[in-house]
Amino acid sequence: MEKKNGDKPELFTVLSPLLLQLYDLSNSIVVIIDILRATSTIATALHNGAKEIIPVNSVAECIKLSKQMDAIPAGERDGQIAEGLQYGNTPFTYMPDFIKGKTLVLTTTNGTRLLHEALDANASEIITGAFSNFSAVCNFITSQKKDIVLACAAWRNKINLEDTLFAGAVINHVKDSFRINCDASQMAETLFIQGEADLFEFMKERNASHYHRLMGFGLEEDIRYCLKKDTADVLSIYNNGRLVSAKKDT
Amino acid sequence: MEKKNGDKPELFTVLSPLLLQLYDLSNSIVVIIDILRATSTIATALHNGAKEIIPVNSVAECIKLSKQMDAIPAGERDGQIAEGLQYGNTPFTYMPDFIKGKTLVLTTTNGTRLLHEALDANASEIITGAFSNFSAVCNFITSQKKDIVLACAAWRNKINLEDTLFAGAVINHVKDSFRINCDASQMAETLFIQGEADLFEFMKERNASHYHRLMGFGLEEDIRYCLKKDTADVLSIYNNGRLVSAKKDT
Repeated sequence: MEKKNGDKPELFTVLSPLLLQLYDLSNSIVVIIDILRATSTIATALHNGAKEIIPVNSVAECIKLSKQMDAIPAGERDGQIAEGLQYGNTPFTYMPDFIKGKTLVLTTTNGTRLLHEALDANASEIITGAFSNFSAVCNFITSQKKDIVLACAAWRNKINLEDTLFAGAVINHVKDSFRINCDASQMAETLFIQGEADLFEFMKERNASHYHRLMGFGLEEDIRYCLKKDTADVLSIYNNGRLVSAKKDT
Repeated sequence: MEKKNGDKPELFTVLSPLLLQLYDLSNSIVVIIDILRATSTIATALHNGAKEIIPVNSVAECIKLSKQMDAIPAGERDGQIAEGLQYGNTPFTYMPDFIKGKTLVLTTTNGTRLLHEALDANASEIITGAFSNFSAVCNFITSQKKDIVLACAAWRNKINLEDTLFAGAVINHVKDSFRINCDASQMAETLFIQGEADLFEFMKERNASHYHRLMGFGLEEDIRYCLKKDTADVLSIYNNGRLVSAKKDT
């Protein structure tokens, strides 16, 4: 719903998918946030020329659909390449020579599921957000004059630090354009300000659970990349079953 | 479940009642946290000599039970005295000359409901926590060698700042006695450290929703009191339908 002049839209932060039900999404743009690593990978793949990314909930669906469409099947469960799939959820897999012009079918533990939950809740519009495409997300949400829900994918519904930090980074950047009466947003921004000088160190110091999970798989470079701003100047927007790159003035 | 020597128990923080379902409470002590104002009022009333406090879910139940028991009916909805009740949820009502030896039947928007949810989830033991009885809570949970769930009552399931800050204060004090692999706990502690110099100012600066709600009702003194540590040296423990004062070496 477009707002009248002078009437700022509202912004909310939802720190776990289980809390999404508390918000009316029917007039809101929902930003799906899964920093480690789904939405970082999505931004990277689209930036590197992927034609589209089809998020699906199950590995079986991923295998079936990718065969039907001659697309790339990818996904992870618990931080590792899902059994039965060839490709995982690391942004570095999706470099231009591999992904350009291709369709990616993607299933992940948290992010792609949350996207379908937002869809089921009749979200007016869905985009994905990551540090990788930070500015594209901020520019889009401030240009639309609509209410915003920053929806963190978390980890099996448990709140996580990195998604919260990204919500806080967005809030810190766009807060003058919105009314924010939401303690979760205030908390996210406070945490981001605390950590922004070095997000990787902050994750380590604060003993973030996902930091340990991925470090245990030897994925330090993935973490560092996913915490870096604006490596992928692209807006990822959900349209008719697909995440596609939108022109930034959409 | 008592832990073996050297094996520290775990501590988790649950920032909204909707997230309580993600945890197995059957071997845990659950600390119910509703700083503004249910658990602050409960600590104060017990400290001032209340015989017991019976938490109930509905105003109708509160009226009925208090008549049956010749007890004091009290409660709030949306921060004000609930319609049909004589007494509200401000700690200052429950001074010794009023409450000593009496039974209080209490219903509140968030805190008393969460307590019943923890009960339904088979929590091994339930206590209530507030800044008012901070040290009694910390001493008890570190003495029991059991897993701990710090359960925030929040506001209609939306995360709030003051309950999170209390969880953070407890964690900051007891963390050497527990294993903490829980991002919500890390976030709560980080926020507490940020705000601890002046929690009232922090609530104001960070635009906490409940700060505004209660200030709008002229309840600044309630907020200030509820953010003050150790005004009520009492442990409030749930036993057979009642919150009672337990000896601190229980």
